Amino acid sequence: MRSWVPSHITGFFAAKRSEDPKTSGSVGCGLTLALGATTAVEDALQTEIILNESSSDAPVSRYVVDRLAKSPVRVRTKLDMPLGSGFGASGAGALGCALALNAHFNLGLTADQAASVAHVAEVSNGTGLGDVIGQSTGGLVIRLEPGAPGIGRVDRIPVQPLKVNYVALGPISTKEVLSDKATMRAVNEAGVAALKELLKRPTLRDFMRLSRWFTVQAGLASDWALDAIEAVEAVGGMASMVMLGDAVFAFGGSQALKSFGEVHTTTISQRGANLD
Amino acid sequence: MRSWVPSHITGFFAAKRSEDPKTSGSVGCGLTLALGATTAVEDALQTEIILNESSSDAPVSRYVVDRLAKSPVRVRTKLDMPLGSGFGASGAGALGCALALNAHFNLGLTADQAASVAHVAEVSNGTGLGDVIGQSTGGLVIRLEPGAPGIGRVDRIPVQPLKVNYVALGPISTKEVLSDKATMRAVNEAGVAALKELLKRPTLRDFMRLSRWFTVQAGLASDWALDAIEAVEAVGGMASMVMLGDAVFAFGGSQALKSFGEVHTTTISQRGANLD
Repeated sequence: MRSWVPSHITGFFAAKRSEDPKTSGSVGCGLTLALGATTAVEDALQTEIILNESSSDAPVSRYVVDRLAKSPVRVRTKLDMPLGSGFGASGAGALGCALALNAHFNLGLTADQAASVAHVAEVSNGTGLGDVIGQSTGGLVIRLEPGAPGIGRVDRIPVQPLKVNYVALGPISTKEVLSDKATMRAVNEAGVAALKELLKRPTLRDFMRLSRWFTVQAGLASDWALDAIEAVEAVGGMASMVMLGDAVFAFGGSQALKSFGEVHTTTISQRGANLD
Repeated sequence: MRSWVPSHITGFFAAKRSEDPKTSGSVGCGLTLALGATTAVEDALQTEIILNESSSDAPVSRYVVDRLAKSPVRVRTKLDMPLGSGFGASGAGALGCALALNAHFNLGLTADQAASVAHVAEVSNGTGLGDVIGQSTGGLVIRLEPGAPGIGRVDRIPVQPLKVNYVALGPISTKEVLSDKATMRAVNEAGVAALKELLKRPTLRDFMRLSRWFTVQAGLASDWALDAIEAVEAVGGMASMVMLGDAVFAFGGSQALKSFGEVHTTTISQRGANLD
């Protein structure tokens, strides 16, 4: 029994932390992509996590395995998304583990209960705040209230399974950004304002407009990313920065993006995480 | 811009009504199927609703059109599921209308806001209580608290996109069943008990077991349906009655079902309603 989890890219967000990782998280808005993570579990003599064919520490997945596995297992996760570039790879690995272990050991957890373990793993490791609830839901997901799936509150913006272009230059350390106080003040202020504005008119176009605004406002974008966004806009497309990665995603503008790196194309995933 | 909505078959339920149709609904558990409804909207001189090529009163869809259309429209809905047999065709039509009109008139409604109009249309017309929130979510959906999407509370049981066999003998009037007091007492008592039991161990197998138990307990099944269920079980499959239709759905047992009518096969839909 395998699980499948989509990528999740955040357009804008504000961190909302509390004592309890289950009620911690973020508000904001993001998109799940057909580029996914597939996870399979098998019994083993010693617990081992294999990411894309290599044995790995994978602390976020490991956190989930330590809590849910009833006996040693070999967990194999194949990640189709770029790593460390804001596509929610750690959340996808952790959520994939939770769903696959639930099936393997017949634990009888609901989707929200399994996803909640993955959310806590992300928050506790400082690797993410909102990817897991977005990945569990699928589509263009508005995070209205922070927290684990079943506690946080989400809604969706209806959206076609459109083509999404992206260029990923390299990683940004989510941990570093999330722990920098001055940065996070700017991020949180802009994120709350963008969400308020989006709720007045929740459409894909407004999601892109507000993500673009947030990118500048929060001061997280590199010159490379800003130039790439402008190049897409110059040919009539819509683009913004992937939060948090030195990566840009776009509707249209695939030609214009070519001078900024290798352009990849995927589609919006309308389904959330589930068994495969 | 077209919308797509999956079928939804309920395995067991309990009606929960209140003064406000938005907080009315049902608790229980049901499954969405790949068999869907596709809806397209175009401007017209006079409002018209076309179901499967024929102009139709379609009161549930009409309720949605009257509330959301800014000017006269022709709405075309193609329904792949059997009508009146508990596959949530009226909910699929209404929810499809809401999503297609939202896109056509650029109304800026979220998925929950659009679906809420369809839920109220169903409850007001007495045609359904829980299909719309199940269809909006997708998968094997537990309805924990009644109400429109965004108000009612749901969770999911993780499930593969498995093959589902079904035989539909004919319609049962949802309106008649829902308005019969003695029947509804038995239904509600059994539905609440089944949900409580499911939450102890939420798996597909337990959903089927409890749906089967509910079918007998609520006294809604015809002899035909009970015989069909037993025939599937005799060959090691799992089956139950579709609530509310004289129809049976099954995992496995397609040969055994053949003596009960034309056997159709579809799959579980993991995605909920969205733009197409």
